[in-house]
Amino acid sequence: MHPYRTHHCAELRASDVGGKVRLSGWVHRKRDHGNLLFVDLRDHHGITQIVTDVDSEAFALIEGARAESVLTITGEVVARSPETLNPNLPTGEIEVRAREVTVQSAAAELPMPVAGEQEYPEDIRLKYRYLDLRRERLHRNIVLRSNVIASLRRRMIERGFTEFQTPILTASSPEGARDYLVPSRVHPGKFYALPQAPQMFKQLLMVAGFDRYFQIAPCFRDEDARADRSPGEFYQLDFEMSFVTQDDVFAAIEPVLHGVFEEFGAGRTVTPAPFPRIPYRESMLKYGNDKPDLRNPIEIVDVTDHFRGSGFGLFSRIVEGGGVVRAVPAPRAGERSRKFFDDMNDWARGEGHAGLGYINIKGGEAGGPIAKNHGEEGTAKLIAALGLGPDDGVFFAAGKEKDAAKLAGLARTRVGEELGLIEENAFRFCWIVDFPMYEYDEDAKKVDFSHNPFSMPQGELEALETKDPLDILAYQYDIVCNGVELSSGAIRNHRPDIMYKAFEIAGYSREDVDTNFAGMINAFKFGAPPHGGSAPGVDRIVMLLADEPNIREVIVFPMNQKAEDLMMGAPAEVTARQLRELHIRVVEPQKS
Amino acid sequence: MHPYRTHHCAELRASDVGGKVRLSGWVHRKRDHGNLLFVDLRDHHGITQIVTDVDSEAFALIEGARAESVLTITGEVVARSPETLNPNLPTGEIEVRAREVTVQSAAAELPMPVAGEQEYPEDIRLKYRYLDLRRERLHRNIVLRSNVIASLRRRMIERGFTEFQTPILTASSPEGARDYLVPSRVHPGKFYALPQAPQMFKQLLMVAGFDRYFQIAPCFRDEDARADRSPGEFYQLDFEMSFVTQDDVFAAIEPVLHGVFEEFGAGRTVTPAPFPRIPYRESMLKYGNDKPDLRNPIEIVDVTDHFRGSGFGLFSRIVEGGGVVRAVPAPRAGERSRKFFDDMNDWARGEGHAGLGYINIKGGEAGGPIAKNHGEEGTAKLIAALGLGPDDGVFFAAGKEKDAAKLAGLARTRVGEELGLIEENAFRFCWIVDFPMYEYDEDAKKVDFSHNPFSMPQGELEALETKDPLDILAYQYDIVCNGVELSSGAIRNHRPDIMYKAFEIAGYSREDVDTNFAGMINAFKFGAPPHGGSAPGVDRIVMLLADEPNIREVIVFPMNQKAEDLMMGAPAEVTARQLRELHIRVVEPQKS
Repeated sequence: MHPYRTHHCAELRASDVGGKVRLSGWVHRKRDHGNLLFVDLRDHHGITQIVTDVDSEAFALIEGARAESVLTITGEVVARSPETLNPNLPTGEIEVRAREVTVQSAAAELPMPVAGEQEYPEDIRLKYRYLDLRRERLHRNIVLRSNVIASLRRRMIERGFTEFQTPILTASSPEGARDYLVPSRVHPGKFYALPQAPQMFKQLLMVAGFDRYFQIAPCFRDEDARADRSPGEFYQLDFEMSFVTQDDVFAAIEPVLHGVFEEFGAGRTVTPAPFPRIPYRESMLKYGNDKPDLRNPIEIVDVTDHFRGSGFGLFSRIVEGGGVVRAVPAPRAGERSRKFFDDMNDWARGEGHAGLGYINIKGGEAGGPIAKNHGEEGTAKLIAALGLGPDDGVFFAAGKEKDAAKLAGLARTRVGEELGLIEENAFRFCWIVDFPMYEYDEDAKKVDFSHNPFSMPQGELEALETKDPLDILAYQYDIVCNGVELSSGAIRNHRPDIMYKAFEIAGYSREDVDTNFAGMINAFKFGAPPHGGSAPGVDRIVMLLADEPNIREVIVFPMNQKAEDLMMGAPAEVTARQLRELHIRVVEPQKS
Repeated sequence: MHPYRTHHCAELRASDVGGKVRLSGWVHRKRDHGNLLFVDLRDHHGITQIVTDVDSEAFALIEGARAESVLTITGEVVARSPETLNPNLPTGEIEVRAREVTVQSAAAELPMPVAGEQEYPEDIRLKYRYLDLRRERLHRNIVLRSNVIASLRRRMIERGFTEFQTPILTASSPEGARDYLVPSRVHPGKFYALPQAPQMFKQLLMVAGFDRYFQIAPCFRDEDARADRSPGEFYQLDFEMSFVTQDDVFAAIEPVLHGVFEEFGAGRTVTPAPFPRIPYRESMLKYGNDKPDLRNPIEIVDVTDHFRGSGFGLFSRIVEGGGVVRAVPAPRAGERSRKFFDDMNDWARGEGHAGLGYINIKGGEAGGPIAKNHGEEGTAKLIAALGLGPDDGVFFAAGKEKDAAKLAGLARTRVGEELGLIEENAFRFCWIVDFPMYEYDEDAKKVDFSHNPFSMPQGELEALETKDPLDILAYQYDIVCNGVELSSGAIRNHRPDIMYKAFEIAGYSREDVDTNFAGMINAFKFGAPPHGGSAPGVDRIVMLLADEPNIREVIVFPMNQKAEDLMMGAPAEVTARQLRELHIRVVEPQKS
């Protein structure tokens, strides 16, 4: 017989009754019934009930073992009596009558319990992460994460992608977020940087002639924590393809994402491929942002023209000043009390906006301040244009386009939530496409790149040479699920001539480009294929699937929000010798 | 038609003749036959021959494109004439007659050619890695590496292992090699360290109740480069299992390694599982080291007793002084000239040893200095004991056990190579087991750990309490293939009581253990399962399979031996602001 186990703790069934078995695991719960002692023995796989009676040699050892001690139990599988069957447990038809017990590891008094659902402060949970990880929810999340990543890998490989490991010790990049630096021992005064993403490397892999690259890539940004961002490292499904159009990129990754969300979505609906493509400007209008939650059926409508030269003074003044009016329909909100509408208005003011006008229709009759001011005929036309029903409501956000769009977007979300309109148990994907290549920087009074300077402009060199920069779109795209941006991506600009021109428009000289992006621009001079890709965030995918709003619940050993590993004690002071070898000295911050 | 390609460059066959196709790729070679121009168009997958004649519009564009330019070619598939068939190329029955050409990327003059096998200096190859990676051998090595890793993952998952990502920003460890450090911005004067291996984390995963962990894990050691060691990062197949014996660990990983070597070994023989287990002491005797190359059939024999009190002055004096004599049989070496034996002796002296005695037998007659000095009868007994044939030779290494073993081991390798005895086209695996737990440290005049202080001693607490420490063996094991150590591993010591005792024997107090290994020892106090694992080196596995002695040939973007990334320019100076944010200052090394 194996010294530790013949079966794991979720394996035994009624058909095993009568067998002699050995199990090992942790003491999950103990119930002392006087003459009988029950133990839920837990391992990675599940739980088996152990029973021993007071006459057994095993009794004292089991009785003396604290919760979370590790025991090896040898005994017989017996059927449970009908009244003690546990249909919630795969092993609920049997129990194991203990004959021999070995204490593999006696647990001390625990700083936090493992059994039960009790909430514990995060610093305790992180310090004793190995205990927290034994708890059912976190254990399940981490296994889910592993399975999701394995599935992503399998699906990418099946679609002809090859995984490469790009360097983790590399060069500091002049763009982007703050780098983590690593002092060089061999080259005094010089530093490596941890990669914010393998962007340069994946593009160089395309230049090197590899066709379809992917990597479950560790990325590092020295930024402060947020609920959906861990300090330190995060993982993305980084991929890149050569000789492809934007549609080829979509067609490659959509089945991977759809498949993974189907596989681990536990029955939730997943947008079938092809995912809807929404141009950036349309998204800003209809959803008030560029990461729409399509589970919310409400669509914002521009009603600016309804108020142009209208009798309603406030809105017509805004419109005449170049502003816009956006309508946020609120289906069947007319049935709500006046308070619902006033609360929305208060909320908008609380968010720093001038307020939310509204019309509430009850039994076909339009009420509210806007209806009154806009006049009966104007209101009726507006209601007809919006296709509102006899008991619908509608909110209005007016102002400068950017502000009105933002407020309308926030109101859309709030109305959707308040009215219970958000589709449940669904993953709604879309692509946001046609991002503008440039925007006007009001502070610098000049045209600048709006997002990624390395994307290919639509229309390529000709567009750059002939169009108004603010009208040029880029082959750049985001993938969004349930209002969460999973990643940005682009068809890259692989042509030095187009790149110099694109930077020139944003006010950068050829020398600027050559100096700051030497590695990339030089490589492109020796034969670069058209290429593009994206990099969906792995942590975010798992958060969506696990329905966890906090990223630390889907990372096995996360840092806390202060970028500390409380379990390992990192960061920590190091020895003078280590610093000397690295040619650096600590400078204590000045008291301010 | 797709804007870039309807087929890749290894896809077209005779059955495609007559079809209109589009291909994209790099200009690999061009051959100008006056009226006809041939281009080998290359992509990730292979090569297709393009042909165009001088009357075609395509001619001028193709003629003007330098090697390594990227072209898109549209044209008809035509059959090659019988005399121009190329059986070495999958596409060798056809060529594509170009009708349209688009230059996607015009290549400048190249710093190194891609086509051809010409050797180039490593600094050029590394600076223009994206060109070097287009060359056939390196391209193949990198794809092999990717496929090996994917196969390792698949096999581990099939065997019930789960992959976890352990942190890359973690704490400096007090043991082991030099750490790479990362200054903390948030915590002035404190540092993260990059993990030398995820050892602590994988053990904590076992303590956390996950059963079978693995990871293709990036590891970081700030050590100087060697042919088989890259500065910076390397990868290992890190794995750990709970509730297992040493044999369970072997049984888990043997089929994975055997399977991968069979899959990618290109017909080379692979040791079937179970791999031979060789106790450490036996390996030191028979092979002169603890990483034997079992392709070499020679086994070293201890012949100390033959010389004890013998007439042969030198050897008997060594033996009486506590030394040993080791014999290295050299099958059929008697046929070699005297020079062969003298050269071996010279080589041994060149290596800093006193020399290699030898006997050479020709037609059954023993010659050489040892035979002469040892006398006819003694020599005959020795030859009989060693089972030498009538034309064999034998070398002798004598001295202190450690020195003699080492010399005998080196001689075994050299004799095997010189005599052409090394088995070709084979991967010979073995486990080295039963490493001693302790050794006597001659410098410190005390007992110390010989290898890993965290391994479980065989016999556990009882052995520690009752045996001579130098007789205690550990559950520690190395896996070796063709003389290359792929990894160390162990059944871990998961019991604080046994750990305190093990350290006490090596002269460390309970406080020392609590201070230096707080994270681990504390975790073990809350219920730790028996566990063990290993971590075969991925880079080394790929080097063996690719038959590449230099690790840089199996890493996609390696650093050079001076720990520089010549392509990206890392490490590099950073800005004063970056240093200020990290609370460090550079200290220029003093001139010495």
